[in-house]
Amino acid sequence: MNDMEKWKIVSSDIAFDNEWCKIQKDVVELPSGKIIDDYYVNIRPDVVLVFPVTAGGKVILVRQYKHGAKEVLLEFPGGVFDPAEELPSVAALRELREETGYTSANIEELSMVYDNPTKDTNKMFFFLAHNVEKTHGTEFDLTEDIETIEVSTDEIPALIKAQKIRVSGSIALYFTALMALNP
Amino acid sequence: MNDMEKWKIVSSDIAFDNEWCKIQKDVVELPSGKIIDDYYVNIRPDVVLVFPVTAGGKVILVRQYKHGAKEVLLEFPGGVFDPAEELPSVAALRELREETGYTSANIEELSMVYDNPTKDTNKMFFFLAHNVEKTHGTEFDLTEDIETIEVSTDEIPALIKAQKIRVSGSIALYFTALMALNP
Repeated sequence: MNDMEKWKIVSSDIAFDNEWCKIQKDVVELPSGKIIDDYYVNIRPDVVLVFPVTAGGKVILVRQYKHGAKEVLLEFPGGVFDPAEELPSVAALRELREETGYTSANIEELSMVYDNPTKDTNKMFFFLAHNVEKTHGTEFDLTEDIETIEVSTDEIPALIKAQKIRVSGSIALYFTALMALNP
Repeated sequence: MNDMEKWKIVSSDIAFDNEWCKIQKDVVELPSGKIIDDYYVNIRPDVVLVFPVTAGGKVILVRQYKHGAKEVLLEFPGGVFDPAEELPSVAALRELREETGYTSANIEELSMVYDNPTKDTNKMFFFLAHNVEKTHGTEFDLTEDIETIEVSTDEIPALIKAQKIRVSGSIALYFTALMALNP
């Protein structure tokens, strides 16, 4: 692998600023010396995504409407958090509890990945929550209406193949968790 | 699974409009009747992502700087396209050739997934390109400087585990291609 250079940021402005959507416009200098006047990136909050397994080998999924895709989708539980205020593992346990009512005394951080490294600034943290149990009620945000689905771990590949699970982060988390569960 | 309702769009405005970044602000009505005044979605172009395998079982990856993440990342070849102008399979072959110089006479569409269904409108199409061969030179876009890396298919899980491959779409594509190659 060659020693590839990063771009230099010449200047940077917030082009669109809203509580729910923040766009930064950078003037950048490429390694070739070429200047790009307007490279837009979305400043987005970091994300946690959790693979929750029960002692009996069942996995907890959530099903909800997503307004970007305009579809009801099946995914693993997760959500956004502020790393200045919360550790990723704490956010993972919080999102799991709020969305499903399940908790775990043994949560394992698997990896940090990017969802869209070309356009978005945020990181996504993958977790494996062992021996989860339903101990709480759910607590949904204003826009959330979430159905909890329990399936056997072995059923996940067929759900991916049939495109019943069709969000890249959830598919990537499944494969990452599978490697951790079968080292 | 219950019969979950989609949100109704009451009205819709383009809040930020630029060749490289387009934000739509929707007023939506939730199934509960509650009105949300400002749900922002990013109108983004659809994406193709290709798992290119040689007759000898090698896989072609690309390594390049990504300015959202501000990191040099290893991913599968791919890019954006306009479905009004190009079939996904044509876009997949074009991106493969432009980024790596490899071509294939046998490309298979594996699935359609979402990358960020909460905030982004775009779809991502996964492809498996069989028996790829290096037949062309590369043709990079203005902002591209891409290194091609060839590894054995068997090495991919270790690269994911070591977080050398750390983009959710590429990990999801690998698992989807693995299922297609080993049905």
